[in-house]
Amino acid sequence: MTPALAPLTPNEAIALFTRTRARSDALAAPLSPEDTMLQSMEDASPVKWHLAHTTWFFEEFILKPRVPDYRSPDDRFAFLFNSYYTQAGPRHARDKRGLVSRPGGQAVRDYRAHVEDSLATLLMQRREDGDEIAGLVELGCHHEMQHQELLVTDLLHGLSFNPLLPVYKEPEPLEVTAGTELRFDSHEGGLVEIGHDGAGFAYDCEGPRHKTFLSPYEIANRPVTNRDWIGFIEDGGYGDARHWLMEGLAVAQREDWQHPLYWWQQDGTWWTFTLRGPQPVALEAPVVHVSYYEADAFARWAGARLPTEAEHELAFRDRPIAGNLMGDGDDIGMLRPMPGAGVWGDVWEWTASDFAPYPGFRPPEGALGEYNGKFMVNQRVLRGGSCATPREQMRATYRTFFYPHQRWQMMGLRLARDVA
Amino acid sequence: MTPALAPLTPNEAIALFTRTRARSDALAAPLSPEDTMLQSMEDASPVKWHLAHTTWFFEEFILKPRVPDYRSPDDRFAFLFNSYYTQAGPRHARDKRGLVSRPGGQAVRDYRAHVEDSLATLLMQRREDGDEIAGLVELGCHHEMQHQELLVTDLLHGLSFNPLLPVYKEPEPLEVTAGTELRFDSHEGGLVEIGHDGAGFAYDCEGPRHKTFLSPYEIANRPVTNRDWIGFIEDGGYGDARHWLMEGLAVAQREDWQHPLYWWQQDGTWWTFTLRGPQPVALEAPVVHVSYYEADAFARWAGARLPTEAEHELAFRDRPIAGNLMGDGDDIGMLRPMPGAGVWGDVWEWTASDFAPYPGFRPPEGALGEYNGKFMVNQRVLRGGSCATPREQMRATYRTFFYPHQRWQMMGLRLARDVA
Amino acid sequence: MTPALAPLTPNEAIALFTRTRARSDALAAPLSPEDTMLQSMEDASPVKWHLAHTTWFFEEFILKPRVPDYRSPDDRFAFLFNSYYTQAGPRHARDKRGLVSRPGGQAVRDYRAHVEDSLATLLMQRREDGDEIAGLVELGCHHEMQHQELLVTDLLHGLSFNPLLPVYKEPEPLEVTAGTELRFDSHEGGLVEIGHDGAGFAYDCEGPRHKTFLSPYEIANRPVTNRDWIGFIEDGGYGDARHWLMEGLAVAQREDWQHPLYWWQQDGTWWTFTLRGPQPVALEAPVVHVSYYEADAFARWAGARLPTEAEHELAFRDRPIAGNLMGDGDDIGMLRPMPGAGVWGDVWEWTASDFAPYPGFRPPEGALGEYNGKFMVNQRVLRGGSCATPREQMRATYRTFFYPHQRWQMMGLRLARDVA
Amino acid sequence: MTPALAPLTPNEAIALFTRTRARSDALAAPLSPEDTMLQSMEDASPVKWHLAHTTWFFEEFILKPRVPDYRSPDDRFAFLFNSYYTQAGPRHARDKRGLVSRPGGQAVRDYRAHVEDSLATLLMQRREDGDEIAGLVELGCHHEMQHQELLVTDLLHGLSFNPLLPVYKEPEPLEVTAGTELRFDSHEGGLVEIGHDGAGFAYDCEGPRHKTFLSPYEIANRPVTNRDWIGFIEDGGYGDARHWLMEGLAVAQREDWQHPLYWWQQDGTWWTFTLRGPQPVALEAPVVHVSYYEADAFARWAGARLPTEAEHELAFRDRPIAGNLMGDGDDIGMLRPMPGAGVWGDVWEWTASDFAPYPGFRPPEGALGEYNGKFMVNQRVLRGGSCATPREQMRATYRTFFYPHQRWQMMGLRLARDVA
Ligand SMILES: [Fe+3]
Ligand SMILES: [Fe+3]
Ligand SMILES: [Fe+3]
Ligand SMILES: [Fe+3]
Repeated sequence: MTPALAPLTPNEAIALFTRTRARSDALAAPLSPEDTMLQSMEDASPVKWHLAHTTWFFEEFILKPRVPDYRSPDDRFAFLFNSYYTQAGPRHARDKRGLVSRPGGQAVRDYRAHVEDSLATLLMQRREDGDEIAGLVELGCHHEMQHQELLVTDLLHGLSFNPLLPVYKEPEPLEVTAGTELRFDSHEGGLVEIGHDGAGFAYDCEGPRHKTFLSPYEIANRPVTNRDWIGFIEDGGYGDARHWLMEGLAVAQREDWQHPLYWWQQDGTWWTFTLRGPQPVALEAPVVHVSYYEADAFARWAGARLPTEAEHELAFRDRPIAGNLMGDGDDIGMLRPMPGAGVWGDVWEWTASDFAPYPGFRPPEGALGEYNGKFMVNQRVLRGGSCATPREQMRATYRTFFYPHQRWQMMGLRLARDVA
Repeated sequence: MTPALAPLTPNEAIALFTRTRARSDALAAPLSPEDTMLQSMEDASPVKWHLAHTTWFFEEFILKPRVPDYRSPDDRFAFLFNSYYTQAGPRHARDKRGLVSRPGGQAVRDYRAHVEDSLATLLMQRREDGDEIAGLVELGCHHEMQHQELLVTDLLHGLSFNPLLPVYKEPEPLEVTAGTELRFDSHEGGLVEIGHDGAGFAYDCEGPRHKTFLSPYEIANRPVTNRDWIGFIEDGGYGDARHWLMEGLAVAQREDWQHPLYWWQQDGTWWTFTLRGPQPVALEAPVVHVSYYEADAFARWAGARLPTEAEHELAFRDRPIAGNLMGDGDDIGMLRPMPGAGVWGDVWEWTASDFAPYPGFRPPEGALGEYNGKFMVNQRVLRGGSCATPREQMRATYRTFFYPHQRWQMMGLRLARDVA
Repeated sequence: MTPALAPLTPNEAIALFTRTRARSDALAAPLSPEDTMLQSMEDASPVKWHLAHTTWFFEEFILKPRVPDYRSPDDRFAFLFNSYYTQAGPRHARDKRGLVSRPGGQAVRDYRAHVEDSLATLLMQRREDGDEIAGLVELGCHHEMQHQELLVTDLLHGLSFNPLLPVYKEPEPLEVTAGTELRFDSHEGGLVEIGHDGAGFAYDCEGPRHKTFLSPYEIANRPVTNRDWIGFIEDGGYGDARHWLMEGLAVAQREDWQHPLYWWQQDGTWWTFTLRGPQPVALEAPVVHVSYYEADAFARWAGARLPTEAEHELAFRDRPIAGNLMGDGDDIGMLRPMPGAGVWGDVWEWTASDFAPYPGFRPPEGALGEYNGKFMVNQRVLRGGSCATPREQMRATYRTFFYPHQRWQMMGLRLARDVA
Repeated sequence: MTPALAPLTPNEAIALFTRTRARSDALAAPLSPEDTMLQSMEDASPVKWHLAHTTWFFEEFILKPRVPDYRSPDDRFAFLFNSYYTQAGPRHARDKRGLVSRPGGQAVRDYRAHVEDSLATLLMQRREDGDEIAGLVELGCHHEMQHQELLVTDLLHGLSFNPLLPVYKEPEPLEVTAGTELRFDSHEGGLVEIGHDGAGFAYDCEGPRHKTFLSPYEIANRPVTNRDWIGFIEDGGYGDARHWLMEGLAVAQREDWQHPLYWWQQDGTWWTFTLRGPQPVALEAPVVHVSYYEADAFARWAGARLPTEAEHELAFRDRPIAGNLMGDGDDIGMLRPMPGAGVWGDVWEWTASDFAPYPGFRPPEGALGEYNGKFMVNQRVLRGGSCATPREQMRATYRTFFYPHQRWQMMGLRLARDVA
């Protein structure tokens, strides 16, 4: 999106494309045709739609403009599988994606194959615009990786309405482990630079790299755990107005939130519904599926606060990108947060920062300019990636963003504090 | 439901059961697994759910209470596939039926086979309660036939949200035919008897047979046609408050009704979406997919009124049950209203009558008493059956009922008038 | 509305008009300007609006068409104070009546005086259309009496949101009285005539008088009391699905109904908010402020049913019109149901009958034809009048109608039974 | 709120209190009792409620804790007139304030007098906690001034639903003036300090004063005018998705926004409803009653952006506090934006900044800590004050905040740009 300093070579682009497409296929492999139809809310999309939309993206932004004789298997797919790009034409109602039974699974797989073949052919050609194409393929792959994360979280949400509590991935009980003691690490702050510097792929909203001033702060060595969260519950945290933003309390009361999404209590034990079916809540694992409102209330209850995104970036940017993420190629990973002190992976961590343009931000011209820019209101940035984030799209500057009431992503938190 | 005077013999029961189950299978045969998942509104259910729920009915009301060693393939199906029988235990949320991807299509077919085998075994036995069982099987088959009608109308509604306008049954264009001239036939009324007399199967709400007094009236020889309806549209009928019930006008304005459900105009021609895909509106065929509010406004515009259900029954009860209905066994019929002057079949005809208990009505004890009785408020009776109604469940005393705002059934109307 | 056989003389018309207008003034007298602004829901209107709308009715339907030089104090009042007569022109949004602070109280009183003077002048003239005018004045007075009932019930609803529980009329505690034992009186039914015969004033919907056939039935000698109702509550009636219409149960659960509107429990005693402020529930008085859904469920719980309107009319039409009604002239009456066995007054009694046109019903031409006809769907008839109904508008054929979920009127019930 | 460096002397506190209370009285003076009841949406409150709530504030936070024998005229007022302070006890539903007809206008005036007398007595005493009391009185007066602004904007909203378009203040047509040419002034930015330094009164959220880094920027010399806005309208700005945040476009379409709130077109001229009744839109005056979404879309259409709050503060903090504001004492001012290039007054200017805590922000202990802190999510900061803002509460560091969809305040905008 931002013109990378060193674009991918054709071979690199092909390899990335192949790995990425294989991962989508691997994610869909365990599912029945019926499973791929689930749409449980407007925010979520069916698996079949994700598979088609990520394919449309390559077709719309690469094949159609650059391959004169390119023919889509069905011209109406552009209407069905455009998500929100107004400059790419009209599109199907977002909340009705679950009502598109046709094209069916095989037709979508054929669509994928058709676009993959066409793109492979294109990448094999020596063309003047080869670098541009490689850049767009890279963007398309990162786009597909974002949808891989959505695919599994949307699927979990969809399955959660089935009283049979279906299993997506083998359950494998977690070993009981010792917890990581909570510690706060100090940072001096000062006038620092954050944001992406343009080396390698990044989304437009990660730049420009720019100066910002930070007061001294402390940040926790690990995310808040389920054990911590149960302490909040047992202390009456959900019902104590002093901890809550007014709007958060109103949502919590209207939705009758008493615990994270997918939890229930059974004979005194907390259980949760996961991609591996029902599981007892793992006390030392990071809490997941909490809203910003809950995270913010927890932090206040704990005598702390959420970090800003700049504080988070500064604290962890030198930490190598490794952890409990979705694997490469067809390795779909653990798909659940694991006990430990990881930063990258496990759970996205809510920050106190509004999703706002960095100083000097300028989205690209045309439909791709809609990728991030038009979401810059009322959303909060999360940092760190989750167990559903493909490893190769993770970066220290990566900003994901959601509304403060949303809980269905792999969302948790990490505490921070002012230095008195 | 009402104890029939002459119960079915075991062989008759088996034959009815076999025919009925075959028809459900025939209805589902053209559908992909994805198609069977569609649930487009709370009023409608997925095809897969209909297939399972009609099976659960036999299991719940016959096998479980009467076959001591009967084992369900999955005890949780009782929760998933109970519709609204509170006395048969708790049940899954009605508006979340489209989120039950598992059990999948094959599991539901296995469930059907399992119950069919168990029931066949039971029917083959000579038992003291053989007549009761035969009566319950007959009820279960009529119940399944009701769901066959819902299955196709729910499916049509579900498919209608797909911009690809999918075809369920081969399109076969209609031949252009001459219309049937409108004529009103006079009836004297007086003190008459209506309702079912107990000979053969009927639902509880069709009886008791009872006296009612009718003033002289006239009733049309044919349903209102699409040609008639276009006259109403072109005369500004949808926008003229004088024709409308206040509540009807409010709904029409809120929903922006300008024509029957599924219609649109294209180059000056009216088109409609049907189970045979998009079709030009057939001018001489009965109008279908209009609400009670619209039917009532049309009648007032036409200087007429809707008949009461007693008027309808009296006028047509001697007409043999034949017409454009769903066929026997696996014959699913035309699935669209056809030009002509039929009473049975084509379209259900809205009556002016509230769905109310007949004098002396008493529902059976237990969960089956919930079949009709608890719906007796705010719904309107329709008479005559439709092209989606299995022929062998049709009777002159048959009362179906829907809310005045509903349009997704095969609903039309026939005019009546007072004799001055 | 129906042309009366013997129209009022001018003097009778003036006397009725004077009595009626005086009663409205008496009802408004205890209220502050702020009180007259309350609009607590779309179904209810502010007192100030009632005072103006009943005035507009005389202006719109008598003065404007019949007095060539009549000048309204403000032409825009026609827009503000038309309720729902589409043929009388556009009108202000019904749910925004509480936002019309101007014209203020004095301006509305001036408007009333202006129209009263103009009408008195008109009535004093000898005119060819004198009988028509007398008939319209009579209609206008009955219309105003209907609004007098709404005025007090809307006011009660509006005041009920004030935590100070304001008193409208002096509290006067009720004496404790003995209850009236419940008895069922038998009626033979048969082919009977009901409806208004045209002698004296009646609304269009009360006729034509017509034949109907009734099976033998029994009807209770008194309305259901608060003591009876507490029995229903204590027996778990609100939570037992077997007693309820499905739609009723859904509403009861959504609204969390556990008792009649305005009730609460305090130290083991039931209290209720009334026009006389908070009061302990009077055990022997008729229960009031229950919906049709609740009334119907109560009747089923009690092994009975609600009477039809024909059954009610037949049973009580020979009983003289007397009882706990709103008085004449400025006598506003008790304004609460009183212990006893009255039929006329105390509480309106829900019937099992849909509000439907009688056979041969034909509303008058023009805007006055909208008076009743356009409400004939989804509403239920109530019979008997209430403590808020002016005595002189009560008749045995009087049909009032409300939606089954509504509770803010003085609504109660009386039981009936089939004769086995 | 923040402990001021030099607290008010008792005489200063009394003078401020007297001026402030007089202004509230002056604002209410032209209103009828009915006018003071208007509540047109949950966000707005009736004038009568504002008068009582601002009184309760002094009672709750000064008199009750510090005057042992203080007696409220009615203990239940604490429930009625607490707005949102959970730590000050339960409170009446916010959206039901318009249903509190009693206490009436006179009772509220008596309540005001009672508290004023009690407070005057307290201020006259020499007490150890005199400085604290003076500080709380100052806070209470600033609180009342905030409510004075709400009082007039809520009133305008309430009156706007009256088709008679009532006049609050004499209309006085505006003279036609020449416009101010648009110019952008450059600022270097760099590492700067913003926020309140503690000298004189300020709300907690205005501090701590802290460093922030700004890139070079330009900011307009005047707000966007109605003439500018009509250019946006005429260029199709409301319908062009490219200018809009996705969420903003969805709101604009749902609410059918085609122009600022209160505007309509009549014979080719734009009119608007104001506190001075209907007025032609003054072309050179600042546009008012636009949401953040609209302001943001306008700025993008204009090739600019909204300033951040830091940019705004830095640009204008040396400009003396003078302009078209609400006057002192009983001078209620112009109550409409005036042509010109003012910063303070006329219209609040939307900034691009989320309402977030400044680094190191810590709200006071107890209920007063709820004053601002619990609103810090999803709201946007506005700067500059409006024609409805009392002059003596204005400061360069003042942050007001509203939701991006809100339009009923005196909200406009000023453009900014990056320096390329
Ligand atoms: Fe996408
Ligand atoms: Fe069923
Ligand atoms: Fe009226
Ligand atoms: Fe306040």
